[in-house]
Amino acid sequence: MSTPFQTTRLVEFHDTDMAGIMHFTSFFKYMESAEHELLRHLGLSVYSETEAGPISFPRVSARCDFQTPVRCEDVMEIEVSVVRLGEKSVTYEFVFNHDAEPVAVGQMTCVCCQVASDDAPQSIPIPSDVAEKLAAMVAPGDAEAADEA
Amino acid sequence: MSTPFQTTRLVEFHDTDMAGIMHFTSFFKYMESAEHELLRHLGLSVYSETEAGPISFPRVSARCDFQTPVRCEDVMEIEVSVVRLGEKSVTYEFVFNHDAEPVAVGQMTCVCCQVASDDAPQSIPIPSDVAEKLAAMVAPGDAEAADEA
Amino acid sequence: MSTPFQTTRLVEFHDTDMAGIMHFTSFFKYMESAEHELLRHLGLSVYSETEAGPISFPRVSARCDFQTPVRCEDVMEIEVSVVRLGEKSVTYEFVFNHDAEPVAVGQMTCVCCQVASDDAPQSIPIPSDVAEKLAAMVAPGDAEAADEA
Amino acid sequence: MSTPFQTTRLVEFHDTDMAGIMHFTSFFKYMESAEHELLRHLGLSVYSETEAGPISFPRVSARCDFQTPVRCEDVMEIEVSVVRLGEKSVTYEFVFNHDAEPVAVGQMTCVCCQVASDDAPQSIPIPSDVAEKLAAMVAPGDAEAADEA
Repeated sequence: MSTPFQTTRLVEFHDTDMAGIMHFTSFFKYMESAEHELLRHLGLSVYSETEAGPISFPRVSARCDFQTPVRCEDVMEIEVSVVRLGEKSVTYEFVFNHDAEPVAVGQMTCVCCQVASDDAPQSIPIPSDVAEKLAAMVAPGDAEAADEA
Repeated sequence: MSTPFQTTRLVEFHDTDMAGIMHFTSFFKYMESAEHELLRHLGLSVYSETEAGPISFPRVSARCDFQTPVRCEDVMEIEVSVVRLGEKSVTYEFVFNHDAEPVAVGQMTCVCCQVASDDAPQSIPIPSDVAEKLAAMVAPGDAEAADEA
Repeated sequence: MSTPFQTTRLVEFHDTDMAGIMHFTSFFKYMESAEHELLRHLGLSVYSETEAGPISFPRVSARCDFQTPVRCEDVMEIEVSVVRLGEKSVTYEFVFNHDAEPVAVGQMTCVCCQVASDDAPQSIPIPSDVAEKLAAMVAPGDAEAADEA
Repeated sequence: MSTPFQTTRLVEFHDTDMAGIMHFTSFFKYMESAEHELLRHLGLSVYSETEAGPISFPRVSARCDFQTPVRCEDVMEIEVSVVRLGEKSVTYEFVFNHDAEPVAVGQMTCVCCQVASDDAPQSIPIPSDVAEKLAAMVAPGDAEAADEA
């Protein structure tokens, strides 16, 4: 039902390495940037204020498969969807393309946490209004994804 | 039989983010740094000169699971081992600890490539002298790891 | 006469450090990004193809004064102008603002170089068509800036 | 009288860019790393606990002049000295060499600040025990450097 969130990203000179291509760590940076852009698109934020205090979504895992290298000034299209929405966690998928060619596919799993200053983050159930907004990004055919964490 | 290669890494101020912990992308940087340190330890290099010309090992996938956050000036111990050695590819595992606490575990799969200037890298079988050195780093109990790519 | 080139930049989560503000090194990254955006705006590129072969503009110096910290998701306005255009070099000024507050002012001096593969870059006079385009970005009141390198 | 603090730094693959050399922003990262290494060497820290509460040293300006490019796996020698010690600020100089060749020279001015959670940092006089330790790093011939901020 839902269509993935779409954004674009230009490969910057400082993303490249001596092999002449974008360094693999930049894909992870751009996964995070795209995630945060999606959150803003949903009216959320990197640090959302909720009734329960500020919450954030630290990562518990991240992965990326690299298919085709991209070079300086290439513009990548990035599609973000939610492939799993649990009680306390959310898993995003990021599909990078360039000129209709597959570039990379990444996933990132984040856990909803209450962040009180200085203490270690405490995982909590995703507040229902946040969960509702994320549920709208669940990829078609992943309906079953929306259950537990 | 083999013991993993060990190194350490200090969490720098510029690795931290506003949550007060090391940003997750720095783990991927430090996986690469540890990989290259291992290569040098084996008498190899980021770009090894071989009879077949210069070779390098572009990544085809990278992943990391994050267990405990680390903070500025923490010193992490990093263990590197080879968990899979194929004809053309090698998969490393990186175990990050701090004060005997598990911090993160990552994996990275790299493909042996001939790198002629400007052309796309061409995958080739790992030269036998390089493969021999990497085989010495295969993790104990992963003997079966040393087969195909 | 000329108005400075203007662009904007969102402070990303990965730009922040444990002090909760954008790390100072990100200002230098964004100076470069803004420079390259200006080059593209002028029909040039990070690596311009010219009759004399590919040219690029390695930095010989960079500086930045920091006035007010910026935080995650702040959008900075960046103005770029040419404050000195020499025979072989160009000096850009970057003025960062946020909500009409001064954030930082940076300068970067770059030297026009011929970049043949692998050799050290060789400085050359800026080709006249490139120099003309850069001259159009010389800041008002800096007419005298357009002389020697 | 004093000799500069000395450290070394290996140019990592992720420091390089498509020009095959270390990206200029990495010099600023390594200036900070060397500064913090010096602070630890003096028994201080990035965030020092003092009687007046935690203090830190945000940057108010940073600059670097680049002389010779360095490449992947080059080991740079870095010398750090204090070239100006004021009441509230300290200016460091960083001299980068590689194989006895000058690579770059940088300066960074930092202001002593009280960092209470979330408020903007408040500049304060450098506590006397900290100032004493920094004074020991004042470069010979820069005695006059040790006056006002």
